[in-house]
Amino acid sequence: MAAAAAARHAKRALVALAPGAEEMEAVITIDVLRRAGIETVVASTTTDLLVPCSRQVVIKADATLEDSTRKEQHYDVVVIPGGLNGAKALADSRAFGEVLKEQERSNRTIAAICAGPIALLSHQIGVGKEITSHPSVRDKLHETYKYSEHRVVTDGQLITSRGPGTAMEFALAIVQHLLGDEERNKVTAPMVLHPSL
Amino acid sequence: MAAAAAARHAKRALVALAPGAEEMEAVITIDVLRRAGIETVVASTTTDLLVPCSRQVVIKADATLEDSTRKEQHYDVVVIPGGLNGAKALADSRAFGEVLKEQERSNRTIAAICAGPIALLSHQIGVGKEITSHPSVRDKLHETYKYSEHRVVTDGQLITSRGPGTAMEFALAIVQHLLGDEERNKVTAPMVLHPSL
Ligand SMILES: [Cu+]
Repeated sequence: MAAAAAARHAKRALVALAPGAEEMEAVITIDVLRRAGIETVVASTTTDLLVPCSRQVVIKADATLEDSTRKEQHYDVVVIPGGLNGAKALADSRAFGEVLKEQERSNRTIAAICAGPIALLSHQIGVGKEITSHPSVRDKLHETYKYSEHRVVTDGQLITSRGPGTAMEFALAIVQHLLGDEERNKVTAPMVLHPSL
Repeated sequence: MAAAAAARHAKRALVALAPGAEEMEAVITIDVLRRAGIETVVASTTTDLLVPCSRQVVIKADATLEDSTRKEQHYDVVVIPGGLNGAKALADSRAFGEVLKEQERSNRTIAAICAGPIALLSHQIGVGKEITSHPSVRDKLHETYKYSEHRVVTDGQLITSRGPGTAMEFALAIVQHLLGDEERNKVTAPMVLHPSL
């Protein structure tokens, strides 16, 4: 039991939060990962910890991306929320591109939802893998990736999903990928999920 | 078209955010109401606009509850998120109790999710109506209300729901209640909801 708890607490996640991020997608993911005992750092891509999201919800990040990705840090998963402007900011950030490339080189997990996969494309992450995304950005992605319309797609260490309505399934897929079915089921039990999930 | 837009923008919501609120439930509701064009004020129940939620997500409120509920203000819906500590704070707040009582006297909508209905009980709102809640607080509620296990229950101007996994359905029920089916459907179209919703 103690060993299992220690193993659980060893998992770490980084959620990259840029202005314009989709707040439901970000918060559902952060909340569910923390319910699973994954140590989750919410990182602002600017020098301002207060991040205004796509529907004007302002979330206070735990740290800047720069501070949370110094050399000695590593994360079992790096999460890219959607929200078109937030995803574009991540697609345009050289510093975040380096974080993703290091994550891929180390064979650690990357998870992107909604418009988030455009940041994968921009930084040439997971080229050729099977992915999904919000339908509105499909056309940018389908030549570089095997495009799927499933609600969540896991291909190796790359997990992708489609939108606010799939965010819960996306978050649970990350939990399952890092911690297994049993932990996933523990997290879902008190959440009153739709019976079809 | 202009008249329809004006009518839409006339709707206003207050989301009461206390420390310990369930951040998924709060953010899903705020985001979906704003997608529907409902002017949504996120109100901190303390004097600090930065509200630490149940899984350590910190949300910056738009205003204090005091400032957002001065005499001339009115809201078409007052929303009570869950999260046990957040709901207890709202149950214990005399100022919030007055907001709820005025809302009920004016026959305007009140919506509560998860542990949120314990604030209804504490302030004696909607006594005898049909409600639901998170299963864990059912025992406090079932003698004062007609207790239902449906995922969302609407009885007159009172809308209640069960947990993080029902928050999307809860938010959409508020949209439907205030603006009708057509607006609900406009909001859902780009969100990639589960086909069963
Ligand atoms: Cu999006």
